[in-house]
Amino acid sequence: MMINSASETLGLYTDFYELSMAQGYFLAGKKDEKTVFDYFFRTNPYEGGFLVFAGLADLLDSLLAFRYSAENIDYLEKQGFRPEFLAYLKEFSFIGTIFSVNEGEIVFPNEPILRVEGNIIEAQLIETLLLNILNFESLIATKAFRIKLVCGEKAFADFGLRRAHGMGGIQASRAAIIGGASSTSNVHAGYIYDIPVSGTMAHSWVQSFDDELTAFREYARFNPDRTVLLVDSYDTLRSGIPNTIIVAKEMETQGNKLIGIRLDSGDLAYLSKKARKMLDAAGLEYVKIFASNQLNEYVVNSLNEQHAPIDAYGIGTELVTGKPDSALDGVYKLALCDGTPRMKISENLEKMTYPGRKSLYRYYDSEGNFFRDGILLKNEDPDSCEYIYNPIHPDKCTTVAGLKKENLLHIVFDNNGITNPLPSPLQCHEYLMSRAALLPAEHKRFIMPHIYKVGSSMKLLNLRDQFRKNIIANISDKKS
Amino acid sequence: MMINSASETLGLYTDFYELSMAQGYFLAGKKDEKTVFDYFFRTNPYEGGFLVFAGLADLLDSLLAFRYSAENIDYLEKQGFRPEFLAYLKEFSFIGTIFSVNEGEIVFPNEPILRVEGNIIEAQLIETLLLNILNFESLIATKAFRIKLVCGEKAFADFGLRRAHGMGGIQASRAAIIGGASSTSNVHAGYIYDIPVSGTMAHSWVQSFDDELTAFREYARFNPDRTVLLVDSYDTLRSGIPNTIIVAKEMETQGNKLIGIRLDSGDLAYLSKKARKMLDAAGLEYVKIFASNQLNEYVVNSLNEQHAPIDAYGIGTELVTGKPDSALDGVYKLALCDGTPRMKISENLEKMTYPGRKSLYRYYDSEGNFFRDGILLKNEDPDSCEYIYNPIHPDKCTTVAGLKKENLLHIVFDNNGITNPLPSPLQCHEYLMSRAALLPAEHKRFIMPHIYKVGSSMKLLNLRDQFRKNIIANISDKKS
Repeated sequence: MMINSASETLGLYTDFYELSMAQGYFLAGKKDEKTVFDYFFRTNPYEGGFLVFAGLADLLDSLLAFRYSAENIDYLEKQGFRPEFLAYLKEFSFIGTIFSVNEGEIVFPNEPILRVEGNIIEAQLIETLLLNILNFESLIATKAFRIKLVCGEKAFADFGLRRAHGMGGIQASRAAIIGGASSTSNVHAGYIYDIPVSGTMAHSWVQSFDDELTAFREYARFNPDRTVLLVDSYDTLRSGIPNTIIVAKEMETQGNKLIGIRLDSGDLAYLSKKARKMLDAAGLEYVKIFASNQLNEYVVNSLNEQHAPIDAYGIGTELVTGKPDSALDGVYKLALCDGTPRMKISENLEKMTYPGRKSLYRYYDSEGNFFRDGILLKNEDPDSCEYIYNPIHPDKCTTVAGLKKENLLHIVFDNNGITNPLPSPLQCHEYLMSRAALLPAEHKRFIMPHIYKVGSSMKLLNLRDQFRKNIIANISDKKS
Repeated sequence: MMINSASETLGLYTDFYELSMAQGYFLAGKKDEKTVFDYFFRTNPYEGGFLVFAGLADLLDSLLAFRYSAENIDYLEKQGFRPEFLAYLKEFSFIGTIFSVNEGEIVFPNEPILRVEGNIIEAQLIETLLLNILNFESLIATKAFRIKLVCGEKAFADFGLRRAHGMGGIQASRAAIIGGASSTSNVHAGYIYDIPVSGTMAHSWVQSFDDELTAFREYARFNPDRTVLLVDSYDTLRSGIPNTIIVAKEMETQGNKLIGIRLDSGDLAYLSKKARKMLDAAGLEYVKIFASNQLNEYVVNSLNEQHAPIDAYGIGTELVTGKPDSALDGVYKLALCDGTPRMKISENLEKMTYPGRKSLYRYYDSEGNFFRDGILLKNEDPDSCEYIYNPIHPDKCTTVAGLKKENLLHIVFDNNGITNPLPSPLQCHEYLMSRAALLPAEHKRFIMPHIYKVGSSMKLLNLRDQFRKNIIANISDKKS
């Protein structure tokens, strides 16, 4: 869905230089040159051991709207773009081909997780939109999955819209579900993405009545089957819990059951233990305890370690903003143009890119777990690739001969549009869980996780090194 | 503008509990109760000394679209809301009154910077939307202004869309302009907000040609009056600058002038000095040097200190995400309901709220600079308020008798909609600059800034303390 309603075009959802370059390609007679661009990232977020890939469905939906309305064209004319290029844009739509890993896949630095093939103008123009969506939703899905890892069977809800980055909060809620949130408070996201919504009550409800007991009673009266009472407006243990017990007992006499309470301030370990005892002593063992207030995966983990009797969490700011990371460093790099492989060289070997059209394979160990990922040239036979090499230190290599392997990049978009029905956010989450079960635990831990190895075939390394030498020789020639 | 095209309704842009509570108010017969809510924040972002308030125009525009379509109502019906409440929502629109400081105003913690007056349902339902917009745009406008403070007369452009939080990037670009960016790369934001757009070229342009010199020539050919060459694709000093000089000289023979070069990697201080010398030695003193790559206010400050001959900056990730802060902690609290002042008490005096309808005054010192802000009860005569008290330690007070003062809260929305034409982002920036000139320098420094003092009248303190005592007595009564 995204920002585009049916009436809206997204062709301007791009950086100005993409349009400047596109006009340049057009005027230079390059508009039909075929290109390949790779999307990849360089550093796992949160000092973790993996990334959860998300945003694919939003990206593909948005590409369908990546067109220029008459008003958009007028605007670009005022920005100085030329009539012949604007005539081209007027008819423009993205009709390239996209290969991608599945949404919800667990992926690793420097491997091509999405490949765009198209003419140089269409592939260039979508760069910003693609990076904007994939970088952000992957950042948040990864954060959510880290929280899921510590929550285990306990549910957590996304409560973050009020602190999210504007409209990005809509996408944050979607990505949170992919990563593992059981529901979101964000009704707009629930509506457009068909994801579960939930919520309790705010302090303003309690304050709007003359006393807390009346506020609790009135809420229960109108929500007999979904009341969760917020107990910290005045004093959790001296007022909130005693009033909860009164109301829960009254509900029982009417054949109803209070769902739970929510703690939203104070020491959650201490208060949850006290509250649990008070509720249990009143025969309210069934009343659940929800907790919120500045939570993240580390706080939840600490509450677990303290055996805090909390049944579910509401998590806001840190979930929807990906704190402490502000962004995923995903990039989109030209790998092939006009039949010739291209690459970005760098002083820094780690920042070199892989030239050419490539495939990505995942190899499994004898127990069926993820073992290595390998980047191969698209035109090489994966069955004849017996070794995967460390791209920086090619003397290090691993045999993958005979291992079960899986092609991770599938076609998702072609000149007819989206090739297959896109899985829902909940289906993406199920896929993620099935994949996470195959990722060895040492890659999932938070502190100094084991590095999952991604290598490449010797044919790809040779192509890269040959290109690098040519480029460097070319620079040296000119200076001499 | 925002997410709403003309065809879109925003009534679901809210947390689920707002709707649950709204239904509760409706069913409890409270729907016509008059309320007052205050928006304020508690902590200056970035460990700084102030906040730049932004997002007001987006908020007010969005409120006009805060309605429920037939499809929205169907969705809520499936979520279990009751027919009588849905019938009410179907006709719902926000017709309350909003008072606010100007967009671009410099504001401080714990003062009411926006006040909503309306019936309890409308005031409650808009909470999430209001917080979502104001918290984020203020966070980014403040970041942009910090960058502006170190850039001084040098321009900087927003380059952040690809790393922004999804669609929030649109609002980030708007807020960046309010804070001081001279332009944005974000064309969609340029289009909907009428803000200046700019851009140079990407590495993919250079790589798409067989050599850098051809790439530069071709770009200059089609952009004779707006070429900025990206010089680090292969080797900045050995290839990028020499090729720049060739092309700049060729442009001169055609009567054109190269605008500049862009450095996007390596040590920007070192490279800019070397590049400046090489350009000057070739008689290209007029060619400007732009720099980008992971910049923020601290890096720009350091480059200034090193006298790096950089003319303008492109700033992306940290600007549009507000790094290292992920969110502003702005909140929206009930202050009056059904004629009775309301407040949230807390163990923590700092977290108590001010009850009642209030006004906000800014007092000026004899030199015409900002001196103190004072929170008064709306119905007290500001001319008779001679002292402003520290709300935590009321023994500390300051006389404001005879000082020039300014009422900061103006009506911006009433039951006829937006009351006055809203200033453009550039006009908001001009207003900010006029205000920043009146803020003493010690509040603008980055390291341990001087705390700007916000106090309150004794009448307001008395009301707060009386309420607090009543509430505490009420809790104690029940326990005894």
